[in-house]
Amino acid sequence: MTILEQAAQAKAASYSMMNLSSSLKDDALKKMADALEHNADYILEQNEKDLAKGRESGLSDALLDRLRLTKLRISAMAEGLRKIAALPDPLGAEDYVIKRPNGLAIGKRRVPLGVIGIIYEARPNVTSDAIGLCIKSSNAMLLRGGSEAINSNIAVADTVSKAAYEAGLPEGSIQFIRDTSREGAIELMRLSGYIDVLIPRGGQALIKSVVKNATVPVIETGIGNCHTYLDDSAAPDMAREIALNAKVTRPSVCNAMETLLVHEEFAKAHLKEIADALKEHGVALRGCKRSLELAHGIEEASEEDWTCEYYDLILAVKVVNNLDEAIDHINKYGTKHSECIVTKDYEAAERFLNEVDAAVVYVNASTRFTDGEEFGFGAEIGISTQKLHARGPMGLFELTSVKYVVRGNGQIR
Amino acid sequence: MTILEQAAQAKAASYSMMNLSSSLKDDALKKMADALEHNADYILEQNEKDLAKGRESGLSDALLDRLRLTKLRISAMAEGLRKIAALPDPLGAEDYVIKRPNGLAIGKRRVPLGVIGIIYEARPNVTSDAIGLCIKSSNAMLLRGGSEAINSNIAVADTVSKAAYEAGLPEGSIQFIRDTSREGAIELMRLSGYIDVLIPRGGQALIKSVVKNATVPVIETGIGNCHTYLDDSAAPDMAREIALNAKVTRPSVCNAMETLLVHEEFAKAHLKEIADALKEHGVALRGCKRSLELAHGIEEASEEDWTCEYYDLILAVKVVNNLDEAIDHINKYGTKHSECIVTKDYEAAERFLNEVDAAVVYVNASTRFTDGEEFGFGAEIGISTQKLHARGPMGLFELTSVKYVVRGNGQIR
Repeated sequence: MTILEQAAQAKAASYSMMNLSSSLKDDALKKMADALEHNADYILEQNEKDLAKGRESGLSDALLDRLRLTKLRISAMAEGLRKIAALPDPLGAEDYVIKRPNGLAIGKRRVPLGVIGIIYEARPNVTSDAIGLCIKSSNAMLLRGGSEAINSNIAVADTVSKAAYEAGLPEGSIQFIRDTSREGAIELMRLSGYIDVLIPRGGQALIKSVVKNATVPVIETGIGNCHTYLDDSAAPDMAREIALNAKVTRPSVCNAMETLLVHEEFAKAHLKEIADALKEHGVALRGCKRSLELAHGIEEASEEDWTCEYYDLILAVKVVNNLDEAIDHINKYGTKHSECIVTKDYEAAERFLNEVDAAVVYVNASTRFTDGEEFGFGAEIGISTQKLHARGPMGLFELTSVKYVVRGNGQIR
Repeated sequence: MTILEQAAQAKAASYSMMNLSSSLKDDALKKMADALEHNADYILEQNEKDLAKGRESGLSDALLDRLRLTKLRISAMAEGLRKIAALPDPLGAEDYVIKRPNGLAIGKRRVPLGVIGIIYEARPNVTSDAIGLCIKSSNAMLLRGGSEAINSNIAVADTVSKAAYEAGLPEGSIQFIRDTSREGAIELMRLSGYIDVLIPRGGQALIKSVVKNATVPVIETGIGNCHTYLDDSAAPDMAREIALNAKVTRPSVCNAMETLLVHEEFAKAHLKEIADALKEHGVALRGCKRSLELAHGIEEASEEDWTCEYYDLILAVKVVNNLDEAIDHINKYGTKHSECIVTKDYEAAERFLNEVDAAVVYVNASTRFTDGEEFGFGAEIGISTQKLHARGPMGLFELTSVKYVVRGNGQIR
């Protein structure tokens, strides 16, 4: 089947998806979970093919680990689907109904987006997560995973699709694209009229390619050049703990800190100690000239360090004169993902929250909390860094649109 | 100034726009209204240049009328700005604040989008409306009007900008682009990183060019191939009045009806009378084979008639076997704008509302009500026909985004 044929099938199925009952969807999700566990041996066999190919082509251990499935990881995928089944249905309710003077009753109803396209890389668990979230939000879908995980992805997609269709989901609503060519990806990005939103999940190169090539509506996700600003009045222990947490707990994710900004007064008193703590945790520091004078073992930063998302145990450090300089730096170099101030000062906290332009702004908490589960939304499909439609962690609600439902009795204008 | 320099100024100003007080914005809007009335003679003089050029180049009377300003029309523009001032500020409030088990308080705050780009055609009143709505929603803006209205648009934009800046709006927040070349428009569509959303307001060619060329997020607007379906059980008088109203009151707008679908039983009894009423109002009819047998003076329709937005006193007519065929026809040929069923039957009404995929679905009311003012939203910036971010009439609320504001006391993950 061509990608266009798959898209047409998804589009056709999307009309039936609009009116699925919650119980049918939840039943399907549970059966999909059971099928994953039941088919674990087959999925692991297919995963082994990808791992073998990965080892041959010299993938790093970290990438091989992201690619690897185990019985435990398959159970976690199944558990993820069961958790999605347990979430409330985001559809059908009306946000409000207003009555107009002429008697028209106008209701704003939550409806599915229609067809969601998702382009992603590496981890095969995204396949089942994405299918689960799209089903729960009554969206048909076109999924395209990376070539390195193609056998695993097909095994997972086939397993859960079969279970979903047996449970009554409209045939054709789940489309996994087997063509992993670059041309195939670009074709997907240009399916205007078939795809209602395209969500790329991956590195900067993927996001850029989508923004450049797509003619369908896109939600940009996951590019996080996140900052933590330690204000003059910050509590030193809290400042150190938040900085450490934001950098070292999982440097490869988008909500990890990439640049530490430090008020000059605070830097004079505490930068040395905080830099030492970071170095103890294996973090390489690249700092501005002033930071080099205040602490040891910092390499001088270049302009590029302020724009870079390291995805690694590397941290840029900059001493700033005041809050204004910190806010300006963040608004200039940040990617509008997650930004934090550590402070005891009320006015500084409020100004930071008001003036920093980002999806999530924090006072006195690690940027690592930017996550659908941590926000209480349940599973997430990604972190939006654009302002249109969805911003920050995207859960089920962000996979819906609205429709105005107007009831009259003969009104004309 | 180049378009890129204008975009950079708008972007820089957008950060100051984020924290404007409601009273400053409303004061600016009122002063802008006064300035329009005060400068009316100058604006009319500039408008006369556009009209002269239009007459020279042979613009139709209808287009010349759309281009023409009068003292009355300028007063209406001023009144429009005063009405926007009187609307509630859409910003600053938080939709909710949730408290997480770890003590984090997560608030979802309404914030501006940032920089809004608007490409529009013909009518110079759009210039002041768009500037007013962007200011009230605290967005900086890049506006590009059509070449045929360039002198009028510059006069309006200069007049209101001067008043706005005198009232304290950040310098550079209102950018009107004087370059009306096609290359200029395409440059605007590709200002990734400067424009947070681009809204094209105009005909199908403009919308298509934007969808094809834009790399910035876009909201598609205003393409309306709207249907009215007369069900078997429709009250004949109501059916006729709604059909007439939807077609003849203003055929050039996007919420006007383009195709009338008629249940075969209803058609046998009433199509002749309804067709006669439409013809009396000057409507030319293009119908399916069955409709030709049931009424006089209908020309046979071609496939193109089902897809066409006439913008004129022309109507396509199709007799259908039942509700299913009507819904399928609409979902196949409609542009997801506004769709109506006239019926007395409860189940037919509910099925139509549930199964037709459009921004606004009506039971027993004219599609002509799809409009920001008619919905009670106040002035509108356009009618979105896409599902991402905004759907249907876009008022001030649709010109906002959100930001998560997280308050902690040292939480780490």
